[in-house]
Amino acid sequence: MKVDMEKMVSLCKRRGFIFQSSEIYGGLSSCWDYGPLGVELKRNIKEAWWRAMVQEREDIVGLDSSILMHPKTWVASGHVDGFADPMVDCKECRQRWRADDTKDGRCPDCGGELTEPRMFNLMFKTFFGPVEDETATVYLRPETAQGIFVNFASVMNTARKKLPFGIAQIGKAFRNEITTGNFIFRSREFEMMEIEFFVKPDTADAWLNYWLEERFNWYTKLGIKGENLRLRQHAKDELAHYARSCYDIEYLFPMGWAELEGIAHRGDFDLAQHTQFSGKDLSYFDPDSNERYLPYVIEPSAGVDRSALAFLLDAYDEEPDKDEIRVVLRLHPDLAPIKVAILPLSRNESLIPMARDVYADLRKCFVTQFDDAQSIGRRYRRQDEIGTPFSVTIDFQSLEDNQVTIRERDSMKQIRVPRYIGELKRTLEAKLSGEPLDVLPPGGSYWLGFEG
Amino acid sequence: MKVDMEKMVSLCKRRGFIFQSSEIYGGLSSCWDYGPLGVELKRNIKEAWWRAMVQEREDIVGLDSSILMHPKTWVASGHVDGFADPMVDCKECRQRWRADDTKDGRCPDCGGELTEPRMFNLMFKTFFGPVEDETATVYLRPETAQGIFVNFASVMNTARKKLPFGIAQIGKAFRNEITTGNFIFRSREFEMMEIEFFVKPDTADAWLNYWLEERFNWYTKLGIKGENLRLRQHAKDELAHYARSCYDIEYLFPMGWAELEGIAHRGDFDLAQHTQFSGKDLSYFDPDSNERYLPYVIEPSAGVDRSALAFLLDAYDEEPDKDEIRVVLRLHPDLAPIKVAILPLSRNESLIPMARDVYADLRKCFVTQFDDAQSIGRRYRRQDEIGTPFSVTIDFQSLEDNQVTIRERDSMKQIRVPRYIGELKRTLEAKLSGEPLDVLPPGGSYWLGFEG
Repeated sequence: MKVDMEKMVSLCKRRGFIFQSSEIYGGLSSCWDYGPLGVELKRNIKEAWWRAMVQEREDIVGLDSSILMHPKTWVASGHVDGFADPMVDCKECRQRWRADDTKDGRCPDCGGELTEPRMFNLMFKTFFGPVEDETATVYLRPETAQGIFVNFASVMNTARKKLPFGIAQIGKAFRNEITTGNFIFRSREFEMMEIEFFVKPDTADAWLNYWLEERFNWYTKLGIKGENLRLRQHAKDELAHYARSCYDIEYLFPMGWAELEGIAHRGDFDLAQHTQFSGKDLSYFDPDSNERYLPYVIEPSAGVDRSALAFLLDAYDEEPDKDEIRVVLRLHPDLAPIKVAILPLSRNESLIPMARDVYADLRKCFVTQFDDAQSIGRRYRRQDEIGTPFSVTIDFQSLEDNQVTIRERDSMKQIRVPRYIGELKRTLEAKLSGEPLDVLPPGGSYWLGFEG
Repeated sequence: MKVDMEKMVSLCKRRGFIFQSSEIYGGLSSCWDYGPLGVELKRNIKEAWWRAMVQEREDIVGLDSSILMHPKTWVASGHVDGFADPMVDCKECRQRWRADDTKDGRCPDCGGELTEPRMFNLMFKTFFGPVEDETATVYLRPETAQGIFVNFASVMNTARKKLPFGIAQIGKAFRNEITTGNFIFRSREFEMMEIEFFVKPDTADAWLNYWLEERFNWYTKLGIKGENLRLRQHAKDELAHYARSCYDIEYLFPMGWAELEGIAHRGDFDLAQHTQFSGKDLSYFDPDSNERYLPYVIEPSAGVDRSALAFLLDAYDEEPDKDEIRVVLRLHPDLAPIKVAILPLSRNESLIPMARDVYADLRKCFVTQFDDAQSIGRRYRRQDEIGTPFSVTIDFQSLEDNQVTIRERDSMKQIRVPRYIGELKRTLEAKLSGEPLDVLPPGGSYWLGFEG
């Protein structure tokens, strides 16, 4: 089902996924903090991306370049001159506005006369070293991509890579956006997952198509419904200065279709610019054709925060449950912040020791939560709402038969399995990897019906 | 053996662990980029810390707060007033110096007269929103700790935690240091792993002792030699303004003993300050004693980059090998960037397909590298130098008996095991977890002697 943004913001705050940054000081607009569950979700998204894009592939290696870079980087990339929005000032009250937001040439606040528009650069700047002047100005990177381009030759040589190959990076970027909003969709501080994939020029179009498919499938494999995703090609007049063509993978957010990831054909724009501005030859010697050329680049560039938001929204579900509403986050098990909850049926003093034993065993293998507060039904609902795929319940029968109940979030079905760590670990690993619940381990048995 | 810094910098650059940031533009001083091997090493360090400090513990939850925070945060924390070094300006050539670096009151460069010292704040500042003036000034956080303190109440309530409990965070921080250097030991952009552990005031000293031991052991468990680590208590006059007492875990770096991690008793300084400046009550209601108080805080605060440097330096070893020197990084398997190298004995066309099969299987389970360039001996040395714990060699006998050789980095000993993914995965997992090499899987056999 579709959930509106307000309800998601409220769930995220209430359950510790995402808080407004510096909330006790009234907040810092459009910056967000990830709480105990949010940080695990974000870690899981980044881990899934890194595993699929770097570790399981032979043709991509990783990089972690710094946020502060030599300022010439941003002259070469075109950001110093071109990464700007038109701004106007009110001559009366001196407020500053984005030109697009002023309708009739008057100040939206006091009605005063406005200056002519001038370009306002979206890069945050700071001063490096002890002197605060222009020669010391450096920028917070507005994208991680340039860290990859300036390291292209070093990485290629030390990793001994030949075309086609890619360099992948996850990291923070900053944009002093005038228009922010929609929760974590557009914020001034955000995290990106970018690949610059370097190819022989005449293969670039084929590789663009390859990456469109590959990246689209990454989202669906992790559970995003196909009907909520689409590819949209940029029109000629919306292409960025570096792009020969570009597609967005868009998600149907509550405010409409919006970009989740951009996949751009950057040609040799960046390597040519950095060659020119640095004086260093960044061309590639192709041993197959015995020639030297600048590789072309296909760039799949995804937002971690936007992905997190899309995964949360897409996983949200409500269903009638007796005379209440059950809220379930149907997150893919790889993304769920907590994999397994350990729930003794009650705080009875004979149940707790066994439950804590099971918990001590399992938390060495999975991200696990122990909960013995309130009724078992309420605890199931709590785990449903944060997307925990499996709960393990210890009840009085467990004391007799040394079996525990595994309860599945999505179906609420239950099976009984031996409580020993060997069986329990193997069973939960298999279920978390998608094995149907009714495949039982040796000695396991069905439970009667649903939820205890 | 001890390695000097220059040799380590050169190895790191040559093999793709660490590059100077923006090197093609002449570098940005004291910022560093982690190459394909460095990024994996750093990921492994952070992962080992997060697993041990957050996921395997019941009493610590994670957080990921933003780098840009409300500026009042840094007034409350004392950084706006106190986080500064004394600076002087030359009245002749207008250069700026750290006061400690000028010997006789004259400019070290031109000999000109200097101004009186004034305090220079080490926080990087930038402007948030479209107006560049004081009201828009925000800072790049100089530590991650304050992101934890301002979220204390939200985290405690949503995670339903009682004292004692901790909040852990990994993230970037920035300090506009005047004196930098010693490779990645002191840089202007760096990454921290911090825990703020909240306790009942009368238990703080016991918890301080607990954390000293716990954190010291974390380094030794991951392979740092005990003789290269020491605890040093801060003298009264070197205590930071927030600390009641503080210990450093120091490592014997090439330039001498220096801080790897600080473990501070912060009392209730931070929560009291933020209560006062925000007007929000950050006290804790203790259900056991039925009273309300500000928790005390023990803070183990570690540097990711410093840890990476210490792990690299400590792992470095050289030993005579025939008439050459074998360089080995004896990294703990959990930290090694590459876990397994797949090495066909030669580029012979019957060996390559089997080697690539084994590679395709294994890279789903481990970070794996395939290498078929140059002699097998040179390839072993290359893997030794980057710390790969195990190599799997496919030779002509493999084609007959379907066994491959596993060669151990540290001992150079070899065993033969079945090439099938089930056996190979189980065997490598066990060896990577510390099982001695001579424990053989079913159907496995000893190889004659060392290295093929």
